Amino acid sequence: MKVGFIGLGRMGAGMASNLIKAGHEVTVYNRSPEKAHPLRDQGAKTAKRVSEACDGAVVFTMLADDGAVENAVFGEDGILRRLARGAVHISSSTISASLAERLAAAHAEAGQGFVSAPVFGRPDAAAAGQLYVVAAGTASAVEIARPLLETVGQKVLVVSDNPVLANFVKLSGNFLIASVIEALGEAMALVGKGGLDPRQYMDILTSIPLFNAPFIKNYGGLIAERKFEPAGFAATLGQKDIRLALAAAENLRVPMPLASLLRDRFLTLMAHGGEKLDWSAIGRLAAKDAGEVDKG
Amino acid sequence: MKVGFIGLGRMGAGMASNLIKAGHEVTVYNRSPEKAHPLRDQGAKTAKRVSEACDGAVVFTMLADDGAVENAVFGEDGILRRLARGAVHISSSTISASLAERLAAAHAEAGQGFVSAPVFGRPDAAAAGQLYVVAAGTASAVEIARPLLETVGQKVLVVSDNPVLANFVKLSGNFLIASVIEALGEAMALVGKGGLDPRQYMDILTSIPLFNAPFIKNYGGLIAERKFEPAGFAATLGQKDIRLALAAAENLRVPMPLASLLRDRFLTLMAHGGEKLDWSAIGRLAAKDAGEVDKG
Amino acid sequence: MKVGFIGLGRMGAGMASNLIKAGHEVTVYNRSPEKAHPLRDQGAKTAKRVSEACDGAVVFTMLADDGAVENAVFGEDGILRRLARGAVHISSSTISASLAERLAAAHAEAGQGFVSAPVFGRPDAAAAGQLYVVAAGTASAVEIARPLLETVGQKVLVVSDNPVLANFVKLSGNFLIASVIEALGEAMALVGKGGLDPRQYMDILTSIPLFNAPFIKNYGGLIAERKFEPAGFAATLGQKDIRLALAAAENLRVPMPLASLLRDRFLTLMAHGGEKLDWSAIGRLAAKDAGEVDKG
Amino acid sequence: MKVGFIGLGRMGAGMASNLIKAGHEVTVYNRSPEKAHPLRDQGAKTAKRVSEACDGAVVFTMLADDGAVENAVFGEDGILRRLARGAVHISSSTISASLAERLAAAHAEAGQGFVSAPVFGRPDAAAAGQLYVVAAGTASAVEIARPLLETVGQKVLVVSDNPVLANFVKLSGNFLIASVIEALGEAMALVGKGGLDPRQYMDILTSIPLFNAPFIKNYGGLIAERKFEPAGFAATLGQKDIRLALAAAENLRVPMPLASLLRDRFLTLMAHGGEKLDWSAIGRLAAKDAGEVDKG
Repeated sequence: MKVGFIGLGRMGAGMASNLIKAGHEVTVYNRSPEKAHPLRDQGAKTAKRVSEACDGAVVFTMLADDGAVENAVFGEDGILRRLARGAVHISSSTISASLAERLAAAHAEAGQGFVSAPVFGRPDAAAAGQLYVVAAGTASAVEIARPLLETVGQKVLVVSDNPVLANFVKLSGNFLIASVIEALGEAMALVGKGGLDPRQYMDILTSIPLFNAPFIKNYGGLIAERKFEPAGFAATLGQKDIRLALAAAENLRVPMPLASLLRDRFLTLMAHGGEKLDWSAIGRLAAKDAGEVDKG
Repeated sequence: MKVGFIGLGRMGAGMASNLIKAGHEVTVYNRSPEKAHPLRDQGAKTAKRVSEACDGAVVFTMLADDGAVENAVFGEDGILRRLARGAVHISSSTISASLAERLAAAHAEAGQGFVSAPVFGRPDAAAAGQLYVVAAGTASAVEIARPLLETVGQKVLVVSDNPVLANFVKLSGNFLIASVIEALGEAMALVGKGGLDPRQYMDILTSIPLFNAPFIKNYGGLIAERKFEPAGFAATLGQKDIRLALAAAENLRVPMPLASLLRDRFLTLMAHGGEKLDWSAIGRLAAKDAGEVDKG
Repeated sequence: MKVGFIGLGRMGAGMASNLIKAGHEVTVYNRSPEKAHPLRDQGAKTAKRVSEACDGAVVFTMLADDGAVENAVFGEDGILRRLARGAVHISSSTISASLAERLAAAHAEAGQGFVSAPVFGRPDAAAAGQLYVVAAGTASAVEIARPLLETVGQKVLVVSDNPVLANFVKLSGNFLIASVIEALGEAMALVGKGGLDPRQYMDILTSIPLFNAPFIKNYGGLIAERKFEPAGFAATLGQKDIRLALAAAENLRVPMPLASLLRDRFLTLMAHGGEKLDWSAIGRLAAKDAGEVDKG
Repeated sequence: MKVGFIGLGRMGAGMASNLIKAGHEVTVYNRSPEKAHPLRDQGAKTAKRVSEACDGAVVFTMLADDGAVENAVFGEDGILRRLARGAVHISSSTISASLAERLAAAHAEAGQGFVSAPVFGRPDAAAAGQLYVVAAGTASAVEIARPLLETVGQKVLVVSDNPVLANFVKLSGNFLIASVIEALGEAMALVGKGGLDPRQYMDILTSIPLFNAPFIKNYGGLIAERKFEPAGFAATLGQKDIRLALAAAENLRVPMPLASLLRDRFLTLMAHGGEKLDWSAIGRLAAKDAGEVDKG
């Protein structure tokens, strides 16, 4: 299939590479063009502007934030003007619910399909085609998108014909993980000040099957070890996702006090220079409030 | 071994029964004596007062709350006065950290051993000898207690020679679970008001390995189904454990804002008649705040 | 002085009227033109479009929200294009800090003055020229604006030459009031459930000089009487201001947990149909969480 | 009247002194006897034990905390055993609601009167007889107590015949003040990081009559100046009162999220060595979370 791919960051590059390997005719675009070179070497065409990546049956966007997606879609030379009627835009970035709604409406009006398809997984999973894809859109658009999504992911979970619901699932998922980080941080602040080494605590806790979940083990380990660099997922991204969850909740008038707490934690972390730390670094703040001092 | 067992509720009865089956000479005591009858039929001696259960090498307590344990230990006819020097008191109830400290000091002064050994697991696990036991106490006391703890549990996790640390682990564990309940409740309030059925949401979420942890599946399912009766673990017990965690944190000067939020959730639930519901019922409160109305 | 006035809601109409009475040559504009009629009868010229109100030395905006101000300023026929070099735009609406910054930069670039001048006071104070005006802008712009501001207000507090600081003061002021409403609500939930009539409570409390502040008396009285209609200041406006305060705080990375709590209170109120109630209605939510039922 | 007075700290000494000046026959008791000397010089009798202060028509207690009151009342040689039938115990300390209830019941059973009469005011007001007294108790007990209360206070506010309600009023009052401290702290964190000097901010704010309340001016000034020593009211006492408010609320099942936030603030302050600072020092924590560093 003829496919465009816009946004070649660590996630996008892996996804595009897998589309190429699967035999699709892929045209890639990235604002800084040098990121396109490895994919060109794998057989991709490279586009000089967004519009050149829009002449296939499908175009993916995998960009940093709402602003970047808005530019790519609504710009003069953007997806909305250049994509053919009946072709499909697959948006895999974690964007706001309100932008997802706006995209759905705009593409529908232009006779184009729109699939919101955010993903769970780190860059290594993207490179391996092992992402989990949460997809939502009209049945016809999802049908076109599905084989491509099955190429980039190990599993495609179709949520609804309403695209924005895929974004809700993605945002809520990251909210859940951040909540567990906070809970682990408070638990370790308590047992740590009580006299139990946090690493030993995590060993004990995860010996109990009830608590032997991957994200307790992983994030609990990072907090206990205070190992926040290099970031697997940067604090700024975590903060962005909590902000998007709260914005979606505000529009729907859903109070989320735990999300508000997480928001404040991320702001505290960033006010103290923690932007580049792993997002699990918010799990250290409870211990700091309890008077624990970082050692050099 | 000659063992006393005080407190024959749903948890204690199962534990005592396994001690009997393992061949120990068990004397049981319960304030309402009829609960001792099934154990007598299994071969236990029955005590008419606490002191009669104190003439062995070990005495367990598995009682409802701090007050019950204080009565059993510090009463005129209590464990402290009647237990032999060198014998061991194993406290398996979820009690406050400050009572655990007081017990440790009192038994030490009396030349007795003390092991704090709270357990993770429901009554069915207690009946099957499949509990997870978190134990702490002096090495000599733990050595005496260990074979008995291995009888009531499938795994014994020795934490420290400081008994109170076992209580911290237990309280923090229940705090973690309650935190996940709250997080799931807020997530479902958001996606639910956004238009996604909470049951479908849980299906999608737990299809992703990252979220496929038993307590997400179990508690998320209860919240999505609004199935809070019969209670597996009553809201009053959950509230008690959060209260104990906050009390321990206050003594150590550890702020725990998420625990404070959980405290308020439990109070709201109980102010609306939810004492007997499962503690996961706090997971419905976010949706109620968001305007969702319970259907008959 | 030749003055334009854009936005003739309850606040703006009173302010414009006082400018007319003080002898200024006022041209008024409102999107729904009938609101301009009473002012025309007082001697104002009426403009058919924004641009027609921009040919004086000063133009005021007193509009509902950021969007309305953006339209008036940045539209094709807007203030930015039509206002003379050296003339001054006075923005008296409660707008976001980021919009105030954007306005300051745009007007500076266009060689125009900009004074951010939000006001404290209700419509009756606006009608009486008794507002408190918090003003910030370059010295030269403030000098031009000052006699007009002294006409609409009883007192003009010049904060800084940085316009956005006036917005911070305004937003923080409404945050403080909302905080006191929440505190009074929780206090009354406690004493009320304890058995003391909230009205009697307020009488006792305000007999003590320490608590005899106007906003305790006023808002406490409304909460105790449950008198939330008609709204003096609607819940939707309160929610907006807390949102703007949180947005400003987020940009500066200032965690404000009490503001987050207020945000959740307003969302809960609005999720239950309370948009048109007075913002003090959030002061009832603590009692509702405590199980109190509204009586018909 | 023959009056006993137990507890001669900074508050109690002033109150007892005024009773002496008013011509009452006062017997004073304090655990460290040297504090009784100045009052002896004013004409008081000094008691060597609590019981010796109990042979009048009324005995006051003004002690540090629940434990001290319990010892004085329920001890072998305590008020309960020694006070005559029909005589009245006036408790002016800020004690827990549950202890107030227990005292009311015990004195009623002993045929004694009990008036809960906590006070608002600092030591200087106590010395000057200018306290505000919030009193509750049976009509007959209040009648006996009233002339004495009018001697120690400038105003006596009789709340109810249920003694505990006086404690609710006192605890809620301190909760309100702490709430305003927190709100001011967050407001100043915002405007301060935005670039406005907190002292200038307080000047502007309190120029507006709406905000010109004594406790905004006083506490806002302390926070802006970072002047937390010497403490007018120590952080440990503030923390105690919030704890008592939360305990009363928990017993009544009243969630108080703002009180929970205050609790966490006090714990953070105390975990960083702030026990002896004025309680308004919690108003600095928001700015610290926002990254502000204390200067030497």
